[in-house]
Amino acid sequence: MDDCVFCKMVAGSIPVARVYEDEAVLAFLDIRPISDGHTLVIPKQHCASIHECDVDVLAQVATRLGKVARAVAAAVGADGYNLLNNCGAAAGQVVEHLHFHIIPRTAGDGVFTRWPSYEYEAGRIEELGEKIRAKLK
Amino acid sequence: MDDCVFCKMVAGSIPVARVYEDEAVLAFLDIRPISDGHTLVIPKQHCASIHECDVDVLAQVATRLGKVARAVAAAVGADGYNLLNNCGAAAGQVVEHLHFHIIPRTAGDGVFTRWPSYEYEAGRIEELGEKIRAKLK
Repeated sequence: MDDCVFCKMVAGSIPVARVYEDEAVLAFLDIRPISDGHTLVIPKQHCASIHECDVDVLAQVATRLGKVARAVAAAVGADGYNLLNNCGAAAGQVVEHLHFHIIPRTAGDGVFTRWPSYEYEAGRIEELGEKIRAKLK
Repeated sequence: MDDCVFCKMVAGSIPVARVYEDEAVLAFLDIRPISDGHTLVIPKQHCASIHECDVDVLAQVATRLGKVARAVAAAVGADGYNLLNNCGAAAGQVVEHLHFHIIPRTAGDGVFTRWPSYEYEAGRIEELGEKIRAKLK
């Protein structure tokens, strides 16, 4: 898409700190990282989100994620990583071209320490399960 | 694996609030959600992480993620979602069986509001790029 910054990176008209590229996928360092080595993996073919992405393209992206994530973690000496996709502005998506964040993590690094989970009230999980299953029919 | 709680869910020996299942994938509601409808998507075949996962299995999981995520978001009236995989204890992984969190999000919901990004010092991004590319050779 003409006005998409990630499509411009794919086309080469905006420079990137490329770490991996093949016919389907481009991976590059995020210039505003959450941790050193924070990398974005994108399909070259434009799509806004996972649920709008061609399934073959999505499969190509997915099968590169592990390879790139392992290399990123090894390069920075991380103990693990978060793989994150924000879909929609409400979820923090800024660029409307599907991208997966690989965020290297080290024990006790203080990144993403909050996991604000709670418990459902009685009957709520069954109710939600029914609603979701209905959408998948 | 005999001692894996998610493998037991796949085998049916631990009950789950199932929302989707096919030959390769099981999706179920997290009983300790971060937001209503928080769903986990797992491959039926055991693997600990993306980078250890058989690429064909990973492709199967990925191609179901969009379908399930869209249904989850629609069912709870969410504006978007986060898709998150925690790899390794340092990154918050608790169950050592690959799983993707689908976390429905609504504008201003206060979930995951922190995005602690920073800027690299001069030369650092080039240095990291070289290290990662070397690991991918």
